[in-house]
Amino acid sequence: MLPYSKLIPVNKKADTAVYLQISNAFIKNIRRGILKSGLKLPSSRVLATLLHVNRNTINAALDELQAQGWIDIQPRKGIFVAQNLPVVKPTILSADQIQSRYASSTNYNIHPLKVSTPLATMAPPYFKLYIDDGFPDTRLAPLDLLAREIRRQAHLPAMRKYLTYGAPVGTGPLLEALVNVLSETRGLNVQPNNILITNGAQMGIYLVARTLLQEGDQVIVTEPNYFSANLTFQQAGAMLNRVPVDENGMDIDAVEMICKKKKIRLLYAVPHHHHPTTVTLSPERRMRLLELAAKYKFAIIEDDYDYEFHYTSNPILPMASLDNHGNVIYIGTLNKSLAPTIRVGFIVAPSNFIEIAAQMRRMIDFQGNALLENALAELYKNGTIMRHINKVQKIYHERRDHFCELLSTKLAGRVEFHVPNGGMSVWTHFPTRPLEKIAEHAMQMGLRIPNYRTYNTGKVDYNSIRMGFASLSLAEQDKAVDILAACVP
Amino acid sequence: MLPYSKLIPVNKKADTAVYLQISNAFIKNIRRGILKSGLKLPSSRVLATLLHVNRNTINAALDELQAQGWIDIQPRKGIFVAQNLPVVKPTILSADQIQSRYASSTNYNIHPLKVSTPLATMAPPYFKLYIDDGFPDTRLAPLDLLAREIRRQAHLPAMRKYLTYGAPVGTGPLLEALVNVLSETRGLNVQPNNILITNGAQMGIYLVARTLLQEGDQVIVTEPNYFSANLTFQQAGAMLNRVPVDENGMDIDAVEMICKKKKIRLLYAVPHHHHPTTVTLSPERRMRLLELAAKYKFAIIEDDYDYEFHYTSNPILPMASLDNHGNVIYIGTLNKSLAPTIRVGFIVAPSNFIEIAAQMRRMIDFQGNALLENALAELYKNGTIMRHINKVQKIYHERRDHFCELLSTKLAGRVEFHVPNGGMSVWTHFPTRPLEKIAEHAMQMGLRIPNYRTYNTGKVDYNSIRMGFASLSLAEQDKAVDILAACVP
Repeated sequence: MLPYSKLIPVNKKADTAVYLQISNAFIKNIRRGILKSGLKLPSSRVLATLLHVNRNTINAALDELQAQGWIDIQPRKGIFVAQNLPVVKPTILSADQIQSRYASSTNYNIHPLKVSTPLATMAPPYFKLYIDDGFPDTRLAPLDLLAREIRRQAHLPAMRKYLTYGAPVGTGPLLEALVNVLSETRGLNVQPNNILITNGAQMGIYLVARTLLQEGDQVIVTEPNYFSANLTFQQAGAMLNRVPVDENGMDIDAVEMICKKKKIRLLYAVPHHHHPTTVTLSPERRMRLLELAAKYKFAIIEDDYDYEFHYTSNPILPMASLDNHGNVIYIGTLNKSLAPTIRVGFIVAPSNFIEIAAQMRRMIDFQGNALLENALAELYKNGTIMRHINKVQKIYHERRDHFCELLSTKLAGRVEFHVPNGGMSVWTHFPTRPLEKIAEHAMQMGLRIPNYRTYNTGKVDYNSIRMGFASLSLAEQDKAVDILAACVP
Repeated sequence: MLPYSKLIPVNKKADTAVYLQISNAFIKNIRRGILKSGLKLPSSRVLATLLHVNRNTINAALDELQAQGWIDIQPRKGIFVAQNLPVVKPTILSADQIQSRYASSTNYNIHPLKVSTPLATMAPPYFKLYIDDGFPDTRLAPLDLLAREIRRQAHLPAMRKYLTYGAPVGTGPLLEALVNVLSETRGLNVQPNNILITNGAQMGIYLVARTLLQEGDQVIVTEPNYFSANLTFQQAGAMLNRVPVDENGMDIDAVEMICKKKKIRLLYAVPHHHHPTTVTLSPERRMRLLELAAKYKFAIIEDDYDYEFHYTSNPILPMASLDNHGNVIYIGTLNKSLAPTIRVGFIVAPSNFIEIAAQMRRMIDFQGNALLENALAELYKNGTIMRHINKVQKIYHERRDHFCELLSTKLAGRVEFHVPNGGMSVWTHFPTRPLEKIAEHAMQMGLRIPNYRTYNTGKVDYNSIRMGFASLSLAEQDKAVDILAACVP
């Protein structure tokens, strides 16, 4: 007899009913060819003994198998694996092999990505002390207030209508809250139909790329640039035209020269705090850029992912607030104000663009999480988010000053940087030692620098990184810079 | 003098500090050309009187404006709008016009979508009694348990590491929970690296389309088919090859004929309860389909969006559990078990496919919401989700029986349908009157049928809809069918 007790494992503590475990295991063995078509199975009494279960349980499993057509129960003859099951090339496997068996690669071809560098798909191992790319301190996030509000929203009778399928642009309450926030904080006077809620700034970039770009379209970016934006444009089939960036931001003369030669479809800008260099685009260049966009009819992505975090003066109003021609697509996010995993951002653009982008978003993931969106709307309305931003703004300001002071004193002459007007990181050049070596050395001393390769992949080896100061307390900064000082000659 | 009190509106109750409201309003007016370069502004004392605010507030605003370079404060001469601001074609607008001004259309060209029918981007107006496409009853969703668990997770010290950027494939706890669930409920024995968490089944379809399809690639779908899948493949540039569907599901002979003529890249199947017709793909056809996929090397999407809801027997194990060649990409979702707005689903596939799909997902929206993912992992672990599914499974079973009974008695001879083995809707044909007329008439009587056009867009006018029974209580079903009976001759 076949080893039924091995083929049909039973776990009485599992959530799945035992009779179902048994019928599912039978099905698997029939499909694998171990229990062949026409095979006579043991009687229910015997099976009950073999599997150490009640005979009623076996009968329930057999009923199930018969209902699904896997077995024939023939009165006075016995139980048989059904005849009309076409079993494909059955191979006999041991129970162990079956447990671990799953195809590890496809038998069809997968196109390689069009991007120049693969993206990391696994989270880095958690490390206590590390220098990130400029992320917020999640310890400060008002997570309890958010979670409490989510629970309150879950109890509201009005929530019911939001729980089913809704609009891909986002829920009404959050759109209305953003209309107010954008007007009060950014001088952007828009209607709800100018806004599309996204899962963060990255989805904003992706939606613009997929809405506007076709194979071979020309895009202008800075060199260096936010690597994730470059990859997204490349994957959408675009050609990248790179312009330099200096202490006043993107070089607009270079932009104009390209516009005269090629039909430009899209320009990607981070005017407030350029990524990665953190410089602010000057007012004169902003004006010229808007003029060029109107003249050459290209779209501008204004990625303003950290608008709220500006320390030297208050934030500079975005280019979008000055654009009368409908060229600027403004992208913002709450990830930096709250926590990266709270995936909510927004696009602001003329309503005809929003309409097409919403159809695209509808195909990507239908819509966002209404429970989260309405909770955030309430936190905007009752001032929680603004209070939180004001609070952390002061903390990050202090952290920026402390970090730059540490770099100036403890690493004097061994690093080159400018104090950033805002944001969460310092763009730092290491002239004396390759970053890879520094990162290796620092790791041995307990400091992780995970992004040391990020800006060393292009033609130029910058040997520079964004050093995130916002997520480190002053004491952690002291420790991190002490380690760095020991690693940089 | 210019009407400063109109140009610079002050709202003392707003969240934004008054001095910032003032400086932002000045900037806006300078940018708009109303306050021209070189214009002398009133003294801070006069401004304080005009705007009814303290003089210190005005001074703070002026400091801000000077810091940002918008004004020059010349000792003993006065305050002037800065000279070096290149103002682009200034136009004088009234304060009212400024408030509502925002470009309503782009000045660049937007490519039309490649899809044959536009998707709805706005949520339908809320209506008390309506027949949906087959959605769950959100009143039954264990929302409080989920919200409570989210709040508990928010307090866990371990949550900190999940709050920052993580892996696009999803959090470890949810991947591990799914490994167990997939094995126990679906006979799928996989490793965590075979799974990618998505924002629902639609993102699963989208990711497969963007990972596998290039312009002109051939895809096989049924006719009729889930419209959203068709649109997603078309938008990715694919050509659709349509095969008929009968009471045993997709016509596999037709699939084979197409494979002999064309290089097929992808086939989309909903074997458990076909969308829209609800029929189950027979075991024989499943086997043949897997054979064809292995032979012709195409990928199969097995969309199993409502696996848990099967009433005639227990759910039939998915094709993916039988696939030894790595052809099946299995898509599941929690939206149907919990609520559509809880956007969590998954893809199961060979690890090389998951790796590329994860890179694609990384570009779309970086990652999911870890707070939600970990809360769901815990609800799987402690049995909450399984208990909920068992509970609603029984309720929906009863609702299916009641609804089909109502159709058979109250609409006898006026509708054609088969009792579905599972799912949440009955595919119903109306032979006597155009659905559009029925929907209009029903609307006047208080019953909304929003999707009457969904399956009437192709070459064939099915005059059929999926009638969702799961979201209606028995009493609501009585009412809805009474209205229908009055509208269908």
